[in-house]
Amino acid sequence: MKISARNKFEGTVAAVTAGAVNAEVGIDLASGDKLVAIITLESARSLQLAPGGKVVALVKAPWVMLMTDGSGIRLSARNCLAGTVKTVTPGAVNAEVVVALPGGTEIVAIVTNDAVTELGLAPGVPATAVIKASNVILGVPA
Amino acid sequence: MKISARNKFEGTVAAVTAGAVNAEVGIDLASGDKLVAIITLESARSLQLAPGGKVVALVKAPWVMLMTDGSGIRLSARNCLAGTVKTVTPGAVNAEVVVALPGGTEIVAIVTNDAVTELGLAPGVPATAVIKASNVILGVPA
Amino acid sequence: MKISARNKFEGTVAAVTAGAVNAEVGIDLASGDKLVAIITLESARSLQLAPGGKVVALVKAPWVMLMTDGSGIRLSARNCLAGTVKTVTPGAVNAEVVVALPGGTEIVAIVTNDAVTELGLAPGVPATAVIKASNVILGVPA
Repeated sequence: MKISARNKFEGTVAAVTAGAVNAEVGIDLASGDKLVAIITLESARSLQLAPGGKVVALVKAPWVMLMTDGSGIRLSARNCLAGTVKTVTPGAVNAEVVVALPGGTEIVAIVTNDAVTELGLAPGVPATAVIKASNVILGVPA
Repeated sequence: MKISARNKFEGTVAAVTAGAVNAEVGIDLASGDKLVAIITLESARSLQLAPGGKVVALVKAPWVMLMTDGSGIRLSARNCLAGTVKTVTPGAVNAEVVVALPGGTEIVAIVTNDAVTELGLAPGVPATAVIKASNVILGVPA
Repeated sequence: MKISARNKFEGTVAAVTAGAVNAEVGIDLASGDKLVAIITLESARSLQLAPGGKVVALVKAPWVMLMTDGSGIRLSARNCLAGTVKTVTPGAVNAEVVVALPGGTEIVAIVTNDAVTELGLAPGVPATAVIKASNVILGVPA
């Protein structure tokens, strides 16, 4: 697989909860982190997702929010992964920020340059990557 | 809270409709505007969302579409907020556009430079910000 | 309609599957391709979506992933459209890539410059555009 998504997390299905249209999939990453994905029920069935199965979770970098101070707030986003900024690459409007998690996973986010300034994003700064479950695409071995 | 999302709207929960996997949350913004968010049922429960509760709705700027002529079309997107372009900041490929709503809320969108040209986006031009409910993240006081 | 979304696909509703909160809508594009969209049930009702009805599917360019080698993987994303890269316009951090489908449809994606390099994206290269169903907004004639 060669795909443009900057974030490709390998893991194992922990649980599948089926609704009428969508399904919620819990994933244990190899790094020890956990992810939740919302996909369609049809996809969960056609990919035959079941606990123990291997999956790769794909997330585009612009779908990742970054938070440097989460005090005083609890978010609906199911994936809040705390780590440390590794690199910041500024562009004209947006910047690419890499956050390293304790387990070794690296998450790439695209945020505005304004956000980089406001949040004081720089190498070494603690930051939490926030990913909404509905923005995770899952892949399984063919 | 310090978060990279350019759009942070404070409001009050108006209604919560629960499905098997997801929940729909109606929000009354302080500015008088209304928003709809789709989050997981698990999040609605863990955040204890209920009518009257305070929330902040977070939306990344690249998740906002802009429309300058909505005549002849009705959209599935639950959030269509009509206002006026305040600023346009062009980059190499994308531009950041700020739309001011009548109630005082400002919405930041990232759209392509091509879209800025085609839509004639410039300060003073009427524009509608279009946000899909599934792209809204909610936060509650911890 | 004048809207910033780079991707506007005209088609006809093939099927609507209703859940408690969301609905899945199958769409036959004029080009012969098929799309799946997840919208709220409330939107499906208010737009009176039913088989045979005309719709336009809107997708922002940053919501499109590109894949050049899909061997060995099956994705949960319901929309995987195989075509050929037509143009690549690099920016500071991101690039705009246009993929032409056999039926004539063109899909615009914004991906990072790193992805362009890794995937070898250039005019003439076969590429698959991957769009999650929950990232499709539908419009109907007013």
